[in-house]
Amino acid sequence: MSFATNDSATKHSAGVAITAEEIASGEQKASEETARYALYLGDDALMLGQRLSWWISRAPELEEDIALGNIALDLVGHARFLLSYAGTAWGKSEDELAYFRDEEEFRSVRLVEAENGDFAKTIARQLYYSFYAFELYTRLKESTDATLAAIADKALKEVLYHQDHAALWLNRLGLGTDESKFRMQRGLDELWPYLPELFHDDETTRPLAEQGIAVLPSSLEEPTMTRIREAIEAAGLEVPTTGTARGGDRSGAMSEYRGYILAEMQSLARRHPGASW
Amino acid sequence: MSFATNDSATKHSAGVAITAEEIASGEQKASEETARYALYLGDDALMLGQRLSWWISRAPELEEDIALGNIALDLVGHARFLLSYAGTAWGKSEDELAYFRDEEEFRSVRLVEAENGDFAKTIARQLYYSFYAFELYTRLKESTDATLAAIADKALKEVLYHQDHAALWLNRLGLGTDESKFRMQRGLDELWPYLPELFHDDETTRPLAEQGIAVLPSSLEEPTMTRIREAIEAAGLEVPTTGTARGGDRSGAMSEYRGYILAEMQSLARRHPGASW
Repeated sequence: MSFATNDSATKHSAGVAITAEEIASGEQKASEETARYALYLGDDALMLGQRLSWWISRAPELEEDIALGNIALDLVGHARFLLSYAGTAWGKSEDELAYFRDEEEFRSVRLVEAENGDFAKTIARQLYYSFYAFELYTRLKESTDATLAAIADKALKEVLYHQDHAALWLNRLGLGTDESKFRMQRGLDELWPYLPELFHDDETTRPLAEQGIAVLPSSLEEPTMTRIREAIEAAGLEVPTTGTARGGDRSGAMSEYRGYILAEMQSLARRHPGASW
Repeated sequence: MSFATNDSATKHSAGVAITAEEIASGEQKASEETARYALYLGDDALMLGQRLSWWISRAPELEEDIALGNIALDLVGHARFLLSYAGTAWGKSEDELAYFRDEEEFRSVRLVEAENGDFAKTIARQLYYSFYAFELYTRLKESTDATLAAIADKALKEVLYHQDHAALWLNRLGLGTDESKFRMQRGLDELWPYLPELFHDDETTRPLAEQGIAVLPSSLEEPTMTRIREAIEAAGLEVPTTGTARGGDRSGAMSEYRGYILAEMQSLARRHPGASW
C-alpha cells in the first residue's frame, strides 16, 4: 500500500494543462543539466512553501491564515512540478527528492530558508521572492524546454497573486503606524543581504541559458531589483543599505535553518520509508 | 494599522456568491439563538481545520500535503462564514470569536479535536466528519435563514471533495496491506465513540429546528451512520463496536486537547491584541 497515487480525489486545480503526474510519466525526460536547474527552482519553492505553512493556524487573523496557506500550497505545487521533472533524469520521484535527500543535497537559496520572524519579515521575504519569481517565470515560459515552459506558465499565474499579496501588505505596513513601519523596514533590511544569491550564475545555469533552456540568473537582477526598489519607495520605506551576505550559494552551502526545515518535513516519510504500510 | 481588511489580494475563491465580509457587514443579523447554532457548526470546522493543518509540510507525500492542506483551508473558510455570522448577534468579528474566546466558550465536539494520530486515524476523523457535514449542509441549504442557507450551499460544494478524499483513502488503506488495514480499523475504532455527540439535540437546536432555521442534529444520525457503515464495509473493514464515549457535549465540556489547539491558534493574536501594530 503506497501513498503514491495518480488519482487523488482532492484536485483543486482541475482544468490545469499540466500535472506533476504527467511530468513524472517521463515522456519528456530532463537532461542531467536541466534536472539540476529544475532542482534550483524547485527547492526554492519547496523551502519557502514549508516556511510559509508555519503560519497556517497561527496567523493573527483567519483571513490571512487562509491567504498565506494558499500561497504555501501553491509553492509546494510548483515544487512538485519541478521536482517531478528533475526526477525524470535520475529515475526518482518527487517524493524521493523531497524526503530522501540530505541537507547538503538541496539547492535552495538562503532567502527562502530564512526564519519567519514576525509577520512583517515574512512579508519582506514574500516580496523579494515573489518579485523575483515573477521575472523568472515570465522569461522561463519562453524556454526551449517545453516542460519547463509549461511549468513556468502555470506557476506564473499564481505568482501574480503572491506578488499582489506581498505588495499590498508592504504598503499597508509601510504606510501604517510607526510600529508597523518600523517592523516592515526591519524585515526588509534583514533579508536584503540574501537577494544577490538569486542572481548568481554558475556552471549549471550558464550553458543552459545559452541553449535557451534556463534563464540566466544575473539577467534577472536588474528588472527584479528595480521593481523591488520602486515598491519599497512607494510604501514610504527606505531601500535597504545592508550589503551582501557572505557565503552561501547553490552548491551545498546553506543557511543554518535548512536542517530544522527538513527535520519537520522529512521525519514522517523517513519513519515509514516509501510511505508504505 | 489593523490586519482586518476587505480586499485581501489573495482570493482563490473568486466568483463565490457569498463572502465572510458581506456576512460581517451585518445586513442579515443573526438572532442570539441562531448565533449559538452557528458557533456549533463554525467551531467544529475551525477545530478540524486547525488539526488538519498540522499535516501541511509533514504529510508523507507532497501530493497529500497539498490535498490535506486544501481541505484544512476549506474548513477554516467555512468557520469564517459561520463565525462572522454568529458575530453579528454580538457585535463581534470572526477574529474576536476565534482568537479571544476561552476554552470553555468553544462549542466544538470532541471528534474534531481528536489527536491526528497516524495518517489512518486522520482519515477516520475525516470520514466521520465529512460524511456528517455532507448530510448537514445538504439539509441546511434549505434553511429558512437565508444566510445559513447560503453558507451551507457554499460549504457543501467543498465537503463533496472532502468526502471523496476520505472514502478513497478508506478504501486504499482498508483494501491495502495487513498493516494499512490494521491501522485503518484502529483509527475507525478509536474515534467511533465520539460520533454520537454530533447527533445530540439540545435547547439551542430544538427550537431552531422547529422554525426551520437549524437542522435537528438527531435527524442526521440515521442517514450519516448508514452511509458511514456502508463505506466501512465496502472497504473490507468492520463496523466498530466500541460504544459511546461518556461526557462531552457542546455546553463547554470538552476534550483534553482543546487547550493545546487554542494555545497554538491564539497565542500570536493575543500577543498583539487587535493584531494592530
